[in-house]
Amino acid sequence: MRNFKEDIALVKAFAFDVDGVFTDGSLSVGLDTDFIRTYYARDGFAVVTAIKRGYKVAIITGGRGESISRRFGLMGVEDIYLGCNEKLPAIADFMQKHNLSPEEVMYVGDDIPDVAPMKVVGMPVCPKDAAVEVKAISRYVSGFPGGRGCVRDVVEQVLRARDDWFDGTTDVPSV
Amino acid sequence: MRNFKEDIALVKAFAFDVDGVFTDGSLSVGLDTDFIRTYYARDGFAVVTAIKRGYKVAIITGGRGESISRRFGLMGVEDIYLGCNEKLPAIADFMQKHNLSPEEVMYVGDDIPDVAPMKVVGMPVCPKDAAVEVKAISRYVSGFPGGRGCVRDVVEQVLRARDDWFDGTTDVPSV
Amino acid sequence: MRNFKEDIALVKAFAFDVDGVFTDGSLSVGLDTDFIRTYYARDGFAVVTAIKRGYKVAIITGGRGESISRRFGLMGVEDIYLGCNEKLPAIADFMQKHNLSPEEVMYVGDDIPDVAPMKVVGMPVCPKDAAVEVKAISRYVSGFPGGRGCVRDVVEQVLRARDDWFDGTTDVPSV
Amino acid sequence: MRNFKEDIALVKAFAFDVDGVFTDGSLSVGLDTDFIRTYYARDGFAVVTAIKRGYKVAIITGGRGESISRRFGLMGVEDIYLGCNEKLPAIADFMQKHNLSPEEVMYVGDDIPDVAPMKVVGMPVCPKDAAVEVKAISRYVSGFPGGRGCVRDVVEQVLRARDDWFDGTTDVPSV
Repeated sequence: MRNFKEDIALVKAFAFDVDGVFTDGSLSVGLDTDFIRTYYARDGFAVVTAIKRGYKVAIITGGRGESISRRFGLMGVEDIYLGCNEKLPAIADFMQKHNLSPEEVMYVGDDIPDVAPMKVVGMPVCPKDAAVEVKAISRYVSGFPGGRGCVRDVVEQVLRARDDWFDGTTDVPSV
Repeated sequence: MRNFKEDIALVKAFAFDVDGVFTDGSLSVGLDTDFIRTYYARDGFAVVTAIKRGYKVAIITGGRGESISRRFGLMGVEDIYLGCNEKLPAIADFMQKHNLSPEEVMYVGDDIPDVAPMKVVGMPVCPKDAAVEVKAISRYVSGFPGGRGCVRDVVEQVLRARDDWFDGTTDVPSV
Repeated sequence: MRNFKEDIALVKAFAFDVDGVFTDGSLSVGLDTDFIRTYYARDGFAVVTAIKRGYKVAIITGGRGESISRRFGLMGVEDIYLGCNEKLPAIADFMQKHNLSPEEVMYVGDDIPDVAPMKVVGMPVCPKDAAVEVKAISRYVSGFPGGRGCVRDVVEQVLRARDDWFDGTTDVPSV
Repeated sequence: MRNFKEDIALVKAFAFDVDGVFTDGSLSVGLDTDFIRTYYARDGFAVVTAIKRGYKVAIITGGRGESISRRFGLMGVEDIYLGCNEKLPAIADFMQKHNLSPEEVMYVGDDIPDVAPMKVVGMPVCPKDAAVEVKAISRYVSGFPGGRGCVRDVVEQVLRARDDWFDGTTDVPSV
């Protein structure tokens, strides 16, 4: 393990929890069988950009429901693991499938079920409002909370470190 | 009544109001007959953990609607009292059914209809944004507001006091 | 016009705008023809209490939709004026119907369409986040914003001034 | 380019991004095929007022869905460009259609896809929570965030500069 700035440039793949990471943890419940989850447009823009640049992206969540698959499917995410009471098999499957070493994977989690998978990747990170147990094992705590910029922050940092983000001197690519 | 730290370790059961406790008090109203209520994933995780550890949990609300039953049914809550204009009969029923003494019960409420049931349990607590009448009779005012961590805070405190919460030296159990 | 504490005790009726007063101004738009509006449980509790104590309550809004009528109908509000591009006829109708003099009416508004009706009642008030034009003509600016306690605050102040609110020495009435 | 106060009085047309400008960037996803977006009543009031005063208004968004068209159609917006991966053709079409020179157009954007169209108008502005790339090219950063008053702020500033806003000495017009 070297310094954070060096290590973040090694990341080629992202694994994300959903509730509390892509959302602020809110689950809106009405008559529909699926919960309504609220995502953040600027987070989505960063993930779509990463996928277009060739990064691998996984969703690993205890949540279930067609609405989660649809949201991330529209963004181009191919590895979506739903209903994970245990998250270790999912992260292992994702890393094996894409032949990823631990230091190439960033995992973004916010609560206790994320602790185990965060321990097997090289770059565990979390939103500013993560549970204390998660902050304790994170290499970086974003200044942004879940659902309001945490995902944008960490993806943008990786892409900037690898010169894959936008810059002002070139035209802004269509994404 | 001893000190708070000692008394909280006596708690074996939780009774919760819904609006303003499990939610921030928001009721989203569209064309559906049920209101949409917005819960917090990390609150839910704590309650599910408590139930798996053997704690008894009741929901006592003036609200109605299939969506409330479904939300808490999915979490494993068995004692769900809806449409309670008066909450005393519900808390009495819950305590009698499970043979609970007052000091074994924590009640989490936020507004005037919760005052009466809070007076019959040993551990009345409330979110940081509770009504002034409720704060006045609470033994503990959480630093977190309703719907954003109050439930997680109080459940976690009880479970920690009784060594039922997670710790870093053992594997994180699957919940 | 006497001082605020004296005048607030004269209020026997409330007229409320909806968007920005009973809500924070949010209009959630999906495929349904009605917008989803998000109300606050503790505001609703105060209005239901006022109606049970005999106060007259009107809703006067530019908004339309069955969901507004249903929300306030469930609370027991009988005078619901929807789709009011002009609000003066509605407030005049409400005052005439119940034989209310200006000093007996509190109007709670937040934006420019509320200015005209606020000028014809004795007690125009507004949430803390009202438009500057509305604050300028209000006799009281609540410390709470629309949708998050402004309605509770002003209704509770009136009921307290008239000894119609709850007190700790009597049992909390069922409402 | 003269000073901001002079230049803002030249604006006769508005082009708005949606997510992060008319909303706080939240996309609520349930079972419906359309996302739910949450707008702000006071922003809407300003846009409706501008249209009634003769200003031209365009919506230019990467988003799709009938719910966006319906929301802005109800407000009287005629130029609605959905699904714009590239926004330059849309802004060019809007300006040509209404024979607008760059200094007559205000564009309100918040994220990287807005950078290109913001460079071709005379008055690029953004909400307080815009992406850093957008703030860098904006002539004005609103003190209000997207979805909570940014649109109201910038529209009101233009209309005030051109004596098209409401004033206290005349009756408030019906809008």
